[in-house]
Amino acid sequence: MCVFCQIVSREVPAAIVFEDDESLAFLDHRPVFPGHCLLVPKEHRDSLVDLEPQLLGTLFGNARLLALAVEKGLAAQGAFVAVNNRVSQSVPHVHVHVVPRTKGDGLKGFFWPRHKYRDLEHMEEVRRGLAEAMSTLRTF
Amino acid sequence: MCVFCQIVSREVPAAIVFEDDESLAFLDHRPVFPGHCLLVPKEHRDSLVDLEPQLLGTLFGNARLLALAVEKGLAAQGAFVAVNNRVSQSVPHVHVHVVPRTKGDGLKGFFWPRHKYRDLEHMEEVRRGLAEAMSTLRTF
Repeated sequence: MCVFCQIVSREVPAAIVFEDDESLAFLDHRPVFPGHCLLVPKEHRDSLVDLEPQLLGTLFGNARLLALAVEKGLAAQGAFVAVNNRVSQSVPHVHVHVVPRTKGDGLKGFFWPRHKYRDLEHMEEVRRGLAEAMSTLRTF
Repeated sequence: MCVFCQIVSREVPAAIVFEDDESLAFLDHRPVFPGHCLLVPKEHRDSLVDLEPQLLGTLFGNARLLALAVEKGLAAQGAFVAVNNRVSQSVPHVHVHVVPRTKGDGLKGFFWPRHKYRDLEHMEEVRRGLAEAMSTLRTF
């Protein structure tokens, strides 16, 4: 059983901030800032792409509430909401990070190196690859 | 009219990879990696907390599809899905970043400095602040 499933079943303790029938939120014990939460579905799902519509709606609806709660409860001015999916996903149980943000908190908005496309042709090639993949995918 | 509304109305060109009745996805012109998309609701909403359930479900349902599409169309192995909300939000029209990821791409999973809570009391104080805020919030 994965560690987040163990937190859900209360076999592993965590600082729980919210739960409903389908999801649970608790403090990350190594926060970017105090109040940094992890929000998980109670039923195990490996990653974002494994969430069905109902659960996906619940989870991001609750991520939205947590984004409001960090402002209301912790005097944050905003929130960073993020999901690592398959690559860099530390625990293979999908979890939404909700990180309180404050102006001047020292973090850059997008913190990774940014690049340019080599040329318009390169950009069009990438666009077409993605657009074609999207056209073959159905919602569920 | 904000620049993303102008992209939606085709007044400003963009490399569009997907659209449905409610949302539009296009390539970020300064990608972290090629294929880095921005997904927006067609109707203007300032930030994540301003999304109503229907639109929120559509948007993250499509973010999930884009996470599949970068694997299928661009040979990525995963995706980073993120929303800056109010702080570090470059354009005040909510946008979901979907960034293709590959093992060994040189990015750290969570890339910001992590800290520890001072002590358990500090952690409990933060937990209580958030839990109380959540208890006063209703879904919509």
